[in-house]
Amino acid sequence: MSEAGGAVAVVGGGVIGSLFAAHLAQVCNVSVLCRRPEHAEALRSDGLRVSGRHELQANVEAGVSPAELPEPWLAIVATKATELDRAADSLAGRWPGAAVMPVQNGLGAEEVVRARGSWPLLSAVTFMSGTKHSDTHVEYVLDTETWIGPYDGAPLELAERVGRLLADAGLKVEVLPDLRPAQWSKLIFNATVNGVAALTGLRHDFHFAAEGEDGDLGHLVRALIQEGKAIARAAGIELHDDPWQMNELATRRGSAHYPSMLEDVDARRPTEVELINGALVRKAREHGVEAPLQTALYRLVKAREASYLEG
Amino acid sequence: MSEAGGAVAVVGGGVIGSLFAAHLAQVCNVSVLCRRPEHAEALRSDGLRVSGRHELQANVEAGVSPAELPEPWLAIVATKATELDRAADSLAGRWPGAAVMPVQNGLGAEEVVRARGSWPLLSAVTFMSGTKHSDTHVEYVLDTETWIGPYDGAPLELAERVGRLLADAGLKVEVLPDLRPAQWSKLIFNATVNGVAALTGLRHDFHFAAEGEDGDLGHLVRALIQEGKAIARAAGIELHDDPWQMNELATRRGSAHYPSMLEDVDARRPTEVELINGALVRKAREHGVEAPLQTALYRLVKAREASYLEG
Repeated sequence: MSEAGGAVAVVGGGVIGSLFAAHLAQVCNVSVLCRRPEHAEALRSDGLRVSGRHELQANVEAGVSPAELPEPWLAIVATKATELDRAADSLAGRWPGAAVMPVQNGLGAEEVVRARGSWPLLSAVTFMSGTKHSDTHVEYVLDTETWIGPYDGAPLELAERVGRLLADAGLKVEVLPDLRPAQWSKLIFNATVNGVAALTGLRHDFHFAAEGEDGDLGHLVRALIQEGKAIARAAGIELHDDPWQMNELATRRGSAHYPSMLEDVDARRPTEVELINGALVRKAREHGVEAPLQTALYRLVKAREASYLEG
Repeated sequence: MSEAGGAVAVVGGGVIGSLFAAHLAQVCNVSVLCRRPEHAEALRSDGLRVSGRHELQANVEAGVSPAELPEPWLAIVATKATELDRAADSLAGRWPGAAVMPVQNGLGAEEVVRARGSWPLLSAVTFMSGTKHSDTHVEYVLDTETWIGPYDGAPLELAERVGRLLADAGLKVEVLPDLRPAQWSKLIFNATVNGVAALTGLRHDFHFAAEGEDGDLGHLVRALIQEGKAIARAAGIELHDDPWQMNELATRRGSAHYPSMLEDVDARRPTEVELINGALVRKAREHGVEAPLQTALYRLVKAREASYLEG
């Protein structure tokens, strides 16, 4: 694999992919692998604009097939979890010299990529968020960290090199020798907050931490998180952050975050329920842990999806 | 109290109130106590039309205060549970010679009425359903039974007399010496089906009884009903019908029923969550029964309500 300074490919031009691409383009050559030809065409002609936390204008290459793009030393796969299978298929047999870093919510993205090739892999979790205003303009809303770690025997130095690159590009980053504690913290947080938001229609606001009255939602959120922590313990994971503290902290922010699963439900799109809630519930089963509330949440969100995807 | 053949008052001109009023008007004088003056005016000038299962045209008296209406021997309080407090307030000190029969979903309507007067009371549960097309036209969709029983020491003969009157008017009716077994069957069914429908957006269709795959909703519905049955047992109630059988039977009907709590959520109205899910959860606490799933459902539906009622 070539040294940092070579080209980086970003697979997926949604909010997270666009934020990575525009920042990285400040320090290296970046190409974006898109799903829609008109998206690639717009990126080639107009570049990529970031507003909000950072103000950036970036030139990027773009295409709808890896064959159209220069071979990168690093491919960041930043599609939604629901698009990961398709994106991984398109990489099969390509870019043998690259390292691949999937950045999806939930658990299991690395296995999905690994099934398509023997690239060195990095695990990543990002807490950045933004709003996509057009194919070429994304607003950077939360400039929170991305966490990176080696996966499946990849060297820590590879994660550190990618970490330095992202930091040089102006992004907040932390490199960890083992990402699973962080992935699980986010998994439990996401399963709970995204699931509850998708069902109730509430953005991630004060209700999620309210425990004053018996009917208050915070009691349920706390119980869901406790189940998640019991699953993590049974799986031998020591969490990086306490998901309840993550929940409390986030609900104290000025404006309530619009959880992506609620966004998907409101737009009547498929959600990431299988890679988030489904993954957590399957881990509970695998390790023999009872998780009645997380299981209920999983089944309810799937039913909510069915109400608009079927029929 | 006067003999059957005297006037009957129906409090509330929604679907259920209109169905009672139009049918009873075929065999006795009926007045409807409305909330909105224009509703009373429309009923006085146009009468009340029923289509669907039965085709009826009825003349009724109508007003917005009991003072405008003839004293009845029977007052059927058929408002939604969310309107019951207001309706009961309007009856306080009125119609001392009448028997009062509240017909709300959930538990506790009789206590709400009792707190306003010493009328003989009847308990009632109805399974009728319909669609309101206008203030003076309701479509009769399910011509299922109404169950009646004495409450708080009222004589069984009173319930039987009201039963005969409803049967003469063409309605299906069953008189029971103790209505609690039927109320609880419907309570458990309603808490479960209405709650799940309100969260998922699904009408009461095959999903509610599906147990083929692990993520299927029927598993959750079954577990919710099992919790409900455990609460009933602890409260010393032997159920009249098994709520799971009610669920299975209803999902096998040709067209999926539109549960009223989902209707309320879709229309961004207050729901009956407190008198249904809240009542069941409070009974669990009162009798020392764990009900984590019904409690979760209660908190989620309240949060769903908050998403559109607050702010």
